[in-house]
Amino acid sequence: MYIILVYDILTEDNGPKISRNVFKICKKYLTNVQKSVFEGEITPVLLKKLNLELKRHIRKDKDSLIIFKSRQEKWLEKEFWGLEDDKTSNFF
Amino acid sequence: MYIILVYDILTEDNGPKISRNVFKICKKYLTNVQKSVFEGEITPVLLKKLNLELKRHIRKDKDSLIIFKSRQEKWLEKEFWGLEDDKTSNFF
Repeated sequence: MYIILVYDILTEDNGPKISRNVFKICKKYLTNVQKSVFEGEITPVLLKKLNLELKRHIRKDKDSLIIFKSRQEKWLEKEFWGLEDDKTSNFF
Repeated sequence: MYIILVYDILTEDNGPKISRNVFKICKKYLTNVQKSVFEGEITPVLLKKLNLELKRHIRKDKDSLIIFKSRQEKWLEKEFWGLEDDKTSNFF
């Protein structure tokens, strides 16, 4: 399946550290297209693994992480109204 | 069509003001699901209008705005791995 993953980590407490950890974990499975936005093809098994890894960091009462799942990339078109893809992948 | 709109405004110069303007404009057309993430059903005509309004604020060399378009919402499933939807809509 094809997913878009977006997260918003609250900056309080050790937010910046959590944000770095979440970024590094997501980068193992997906492509970074914007500061806290990832996309890519992923199997259900790997999505489960990603979920378990992220769960150790995401604070359910503070942080937001949303997954948009589409059965196939062909049903998803992407448009850039600002910086193009490659320029956004050097954030961390 | 159903779209997911994500943006990342560079904080330099008048970034915060641009971010507020972009947020207000997006809120007229779409539903806010995370700090800089919107989603919703939109017609091609309204998408064009949204594009023109945003273009007056987005700095092409600094800011990133990505639209993921899906022909219909039914091809998009949403999962929350943190804060639920309603708690994320009071950001501004």
